[in-house]
Amino acid sequence: MSARAAIKTAIVGASGYAGEDLVRLLLAHPHADLVEVTSRQYAGQTLAQVFPKFSHYPRAKALSFTEPNAEMVEKPAEVVFLALPHGVAAEFAVPLLRAGARVIDLSADFRIKNADTYEEFYAHEHPAPDLLQKSVYGLPEVYRSEIKNAALIACPGCYPTSILLPALPLVRDHLIEPTSIIADSLSGVSGAGRKVELDYLFAECNESMRPYGVPKHRHLSEIEQELSKAAGKKIVVQFTPHLIPVNRGILTTIYCAPVLDFKSDETFAKFSERIDTCYRKAYGNDTFVRLLEGKALPDTKNVVGTNFIEIAWRLDHRTGRLIVMSAEDNIVKGTSGQAIQCFNIMFGYPETAGLI
Amino acid sequence: MSARAAIKTAIVGASGYAGEDLVRLLLAHPHADLVEVTSRQYAGQTLAQVFPKFSHYPRAKALSFTEPNAEMVEKPAEVVFLALPHGVAAEFAVPLLRAGARVIDLSADFRIKNADTYEEFYAHEHPAPDLLQKSVYGLPEVYRSEIKNAALIACPGCYPTSILLPALPLVRDHLIEPTSIIADSLSGVSGAGRKVELDYLFAECNESMRPYGVPKHRHLSEIEQELSKAAGKKIVVQFTPHLIPVNRGILTTIYCAPVLDFKSDETFAKFSERIDTCYRKAYGNDTFVRLLEGKALPDTKNVVGTNFIEIAWRLDHRTGRLIVMSAEDNIVKGTSGQAIQCFNIMFGYPETAGLI
Amino acid sequence: MSARAAIKTAIVGASGYAGEDLVRLLLAHPHADLVEVTSRQYAGQTLAQVFPKFSHYPRAKALSFTEPNAEMVEKPAEVVFLALPHGVAAEFAVPLLRAGARVIDLSADFRIKNADTYEEFYAHEHPAPDLLQKSVYGLPEVYRSEIKNAALIACPGCYPTSILLPALPLVRDHLIEPTSIIADSLSGVSGAGRKVELDYLFAECNESMRPYGVPKHRHLSEIEQELSKAAGKKIVVQFTPHLIPVNRGILTTIYCAPVLDFKSDETFAKFSERIDTCYRKAYGNDTFVRLLEGKALPDTKNVVGTNFIEIAWRLDHRTGRLIVMSAEDNIVKGTSGQAIQCFNIMFGYPETAGLI
Amino acid sequence: MSARAAIKTAIVGASGYAGEDLVRLLLAHPHADLVEVTSRQYAGQTLAQVFPKFSHYPRAKALSFTEPNAEMVEKPAEVVFLALPHGVAAEFAVPLLRAGARVIDLSADFRIKNADTYEEFYAHEHPAPDLLQKSVYGLPEVYRSEIKNAALIACPGCYPTSILLPALPLVRDHLIEPTSIIADSLSGVSGAGRKVELDYLFAECNESMRPYGVPKHRHLSEIEQELSKAAGKKIVVQFTPHLIPVNRGILTTIYCAPVLDFKSDETFAKFSERIDTCYRKAYGNDTFVRLLEGKALPDTKNVVGTNFIEIAWRLDHRTGRLIVMSAEDNIVKGTSGQAIQCFNIMFGYPETAGLI
Repeated sequence: MSARAAIKTAIVGASGYAGEDLVRLLLAHPHADLVEVTSRQYAGQTLAQVFPKFSHYPRAKALSFTEPNAEMVEKPAEVVFLALPHGVAAEFAVPLLRAGARVIDLSADFRIKNADTYEEFYAHEHPAPDLLQKSVYGLPEVYRSEIKNAALIACPGCYPTSILLPALPLVRDHLIEPTSIIADSLSGVSGAGRKVELDYLFAECNESMRPYGVPKHRHLSEIEQELSKAAGKKIVVQFTPHLIPVNRGILTTIYCAPVLDFKSDETFAKFSERIDTCYRKAYGNDTFVRLLEGKALPDTKNVVGTNFIEIAWRLDHRTGRLIVMSAEDNIVKGTSGQAIQCFNIMFGYPETAGLI
Repeated sequence: MSARAAIKTAIVGASGYAGEDLVRLLLAHPHADLVEVTSRQYAGQTLAQVFPKFSHYPRAKALSFTEPNAEMVEKPAEVVFLALPHGVAAEFAVPLLRAGARVIDLSADFRIKNADTYEEFYAHEHPAPDLLQKSVYGLPEVYRSEIKNAALIACPGCYPTSILLPALPLVRDHLIEPTSIIADSLSGVSGAGRKVELDYLFAECNESMRPYGVPKHRHLSEIEQELSKAAGKKIVVQFTPHLIPVNRGILTTIYCAPVLDFKSDETFAKFSERIDTCYRKAYGNDTFVRLLEGKALPDTKNVVGTNFIEIAWRLDHRTGRLIVMSAEDNIVKGTSGQAIQCFNIMFGYPETAGLI
Repeated sequence: MSARAAIKTAIVGASGYAGEDLVRLLLAHPHADLVEVTSRQYAGQTLAQVFPKFSHYPRAKALSFTEPNAEMVEKPAEVVFLALPHGVAAEFAVPLLRAGARVIDLSADFRIKNADTYEEFYAHEHPAPDLLQKSVYGLPEVYRSEIKNAALIACPGCYPTSILLPALPLVRDHLIEPTSIIADSLSGVSGAGRKVELDYLFAECNESMRPYGVPKHRHLSEIEQELSKAAGKKIVVQFTPHLIPVNRGILTTIYCAPVLDFKSDETFAKFSERIDTCYRKAYGNDTFVRLLEGKALPDTKNVVGTNFIEIAWRLDHRTGRLIVMSAEDNIVKGTSGQAIQCFNIMFGYPETAGLI
Repeated sequence: MSARAAIKTAIVGASGYAGEDLVRLLLAHPHADLVEVTSRQYAGQTLAQVFPKFSHYPRAKALSFTEPNAEMVEKPAEVVFLALPHGVAAEFAVPLLRAGARVIDLSADFRIKNADTYEEFYAHEHPAPDLLQKSVYGLPEVYRSEIKNAALIACPGCYPTSILLPALPLVRDHLIEPTSIIADSLSGVSGAGRKVELDYLFAECNESMRPYGVPKHRHLSEIEQELSKAAGKKIVVQFTPHLIPVNRGILTTIYCAPVLDFKSDETFAKFSERIDTCYRKAYGNDTFVRLLEGKALPDTKNVVGTNFIEIAWRLDHRTGRLIVMSAEDNIVKGTSGQAIQCFNIMFGYPETAGLI
């Protein structure tokens, strides 16, 4: 492990759920030093005042929120995490990169390689298209080596993480027909962010289950980009998110058609083995991907508050389909924890540093 | 409306969630007279003692639970509701029918026409196969006329109701390829019944989202039976239930392939109109089926505690699929309310009697 | 029962939780005819569009929200329900009363007889102090006869209802020392209204329990007014509300000191009997007050969605205190249901009309 | 910090909520080595199999549950945690202590110094009364020095912890009349343990708020013992627990009468200062006691999953009472975390080791 001093880190937009979770992870991180947090709303207050639960960290008592300003962009920390809405993040990334910071962006701004696709899904022109090719999609289990040297990380969305980790190995290994992918996802309400809107009031969400964003959710842009890349051809995915009354967690159920008919007992066993091998090859060394065994099925309560993702699958010999299920914490593995995992890779720390 | 006296009704197994809801509905029903309730656990106690919330009904103070016994089977009420586990329900149905009662069974015992299929899915020989052809599947919107004169009603399961009502019209009108149906369902915890098992403890369910029964849930037997009948050929369905931390409600999302390619704007508009027509034709006069309009999507909080089911659909011109979503109360429309709706039909009352 | 035509009713401010529940109750009421609903936000849309769950009522499809306007005040319906914030309600009440309408106000504006007390607790001068002496506090179990002929009803707050119904009989019968009353209340989040504020977001309330408004909540003004009146002297009450992650319900636990020492077995039995008699005398004929017996304790799940309030009490021979507990639905018995109960009394209908 | 090897630890009864949380804390503890876990139910399975969420710890894959047996009692680990029901715990403690182990008991068996009081509250004779005087009540903030050298720690109950930490300093410093204490507590459902009983099913708890154990809950025995000791006289306490639909957390609101009248502005300010001083003196150096400042009030969501307890207080100049509120995680600070804090003290580690 590195003997070098802790890395100076800043968070721009530290008062949303993702930002708050970054604060939690960085305050406890053995190799990070949180030196700057911004928030228009809380400028002038200390971290401890805004989040009393962090008040046992001396740094939380010492560090005050500032308004985002020119100085922090011109003389930035070594790493700057952007926990900002899409569109806004790019405005900060450009000067920060110019000033030499490494940027880990949690927004959607640098996830899409094609500026037209970005505009199609996000309904505004991309503010910094030049950077799209330079950014690295921060899915550690897939882009570990690119992340290591990246100046700009585009952390994946929470839904895409829950879909890509289970689906990519199958597509890469040509085990399924990529156009057959249907992803049905359930998300806790924190996924909407700390947005003060009627739809997210307690009494509107509790004892409610509902689909939304049907049929063209924004996250499809990055899901399809990554699956198309793995498939070697452009593919279109079916995706339906649902809002569920839990604070945290995403449960995804993926339906897909294997490339071969496995309904006989013999082919069933063989194909099962191929899937098993595929996942072990992909994630056998990945601490944070938990491949479930036996009768176990994913359950968000087993991963909430952690950077783990659980994955299980079943072949259905009646329908000929493969069903893959995953469970993650939308804010940790789906957002901030994954960002810290990228940070660890970027600076040569164990991937689990500050996360277990 | 009938001027005849209220119908004498009995409930066998009145202490589970379905039985309790039947009690609620029958106590308030303008044309029903609840004369007998059985429960091994509560025998000797009045309805008001076991369920203080019903204590404002004089009948709830007067009527005590009894153990199921020979007399109630030999000299039964005019209608007997069976809210018993599968296997047990059939044991009661046989002598009750012989004694001249009309039986409304909430279990799975008489839903499946084929005794082998029953045995495949329920893992025991059918106790009364002779009755299978005589029973009527109690889905009022589909089998209204058969229900009217039936001696034995087999009320549909809660998941099947949420899937069949949106799917049947499409299959009947040959608008979708029936083998393409994938039904992804979310259920509140009352769906497990008042079963005292670890999995259903509050702290095991709250802040948890999980699939279960993958890939061959028992309800597939009746879902496939009814869809096959509508399709005129045997079809197999993909179905995944999930357990969600709400008390009540089922939210189902169905993915299916239309029979034609509608990706051009013109075909999209035409096909949309055909689906719209299909649903209006099927349910235009059905009070309890609420076809949502405009941007509205189903939300269980809009139907909980009621006998309504909400249905909405979207064509996805990107994937070429049709997505249909439904929301119902698993205990009311999915179980006891539907049973009362059948009761109303059987005795010539308005279908909404005691339900709105 | 009256053979007269249904009463024409209007709701000003029909889009909050209380207003929505009034809509629900009035649409189903056998003797009310809802002819006008106002909402700035939804003006122009029908009730069925805004609340699809009411769409099976023909009236919900026919009736559109209007902006509050001069005409509805000058030629008002026979009864107007005001479901508006305090301060605003009084502005409507004055001209409505002048135009001859009977007004049932759900706000705090006319609950407090003393304009100075109103100003102390609500932080603004009372807008119509003349009306304070004319209004009737709409607690049906206490002010039934005054309600009958009132032109202006001030419906009690949700917390006060849950505290006054259990406490008033004890104070009136001099069984407890009124200065000893401590009321500890738990409320579901709908109690905050459909207010779009950070504190009431799902992820801020779920898995959270917290006190608020300590130690001087506004509702103390009416609690103390009514208890002082019953005691015949000015008394001050301790009251702490807590926010609990349920949609609906208030659970109140009241601690108080009996006027005599009952620690011996004999006095314990005698005093128990006096309390029992006190409550039976007060509420023996009140359908909506459910005095629990035996080991039963109040539970909000038994009253949610209804106009009932459950009450139970225990004498603690160790401490010498009396503990009284109540459970109600904050929106029904605590607000809209109680308003309908007043309406029924005002027009000579059975109190339970439209409520059971 | 000690350079000695990690302490070998065992958990008897590791499959309940308290036991599971001990597993979590010990697997991650820098100075503990978990060498034995018992469970009748799971004997033969590894920790990783029973709790997949711990499967990233090599120890969780290596360590299997055993049935409690003679060998583990005769040749025990250096420290044995007992997470067993009361009555059963004592049976293990006696031989374990004899064999030289240090015992940290999470049950109620050794909390009460007086065997008669134990029998009064727990309804059976104490199985090992000799040990009652030797055990140390494991409230670290109060009994730190006794804990250091204790052979037998009786960890406080979850409710008592939430009441004693806020109340003890006030009683010790004679700021309140100890007989005036009323503690009203709200607990998450995990407080009932992993008990498979109807009352704790999801659908029985969700959307429910209810008192229970009124007026004589078992935990009163230890609450009164400790407050009496601090007061120097026997006192009796009023305590009402309530069951609330959250997984974890206890929120306690304490009402008490100050020893002096502080209603004038001057005395109010002076008394406020005395209370402030009292708490700072008591807990100024205690990491895990978070004294809230300004307008902040305790909220369980700020402490869930941690060993912190939040405390805030308000003087009510209207009633002359002092209200003190606390929030803790019932399983961590209320049970297992507190046990680890004791462990840290016993072995000279920083109190926060493995807890922050």
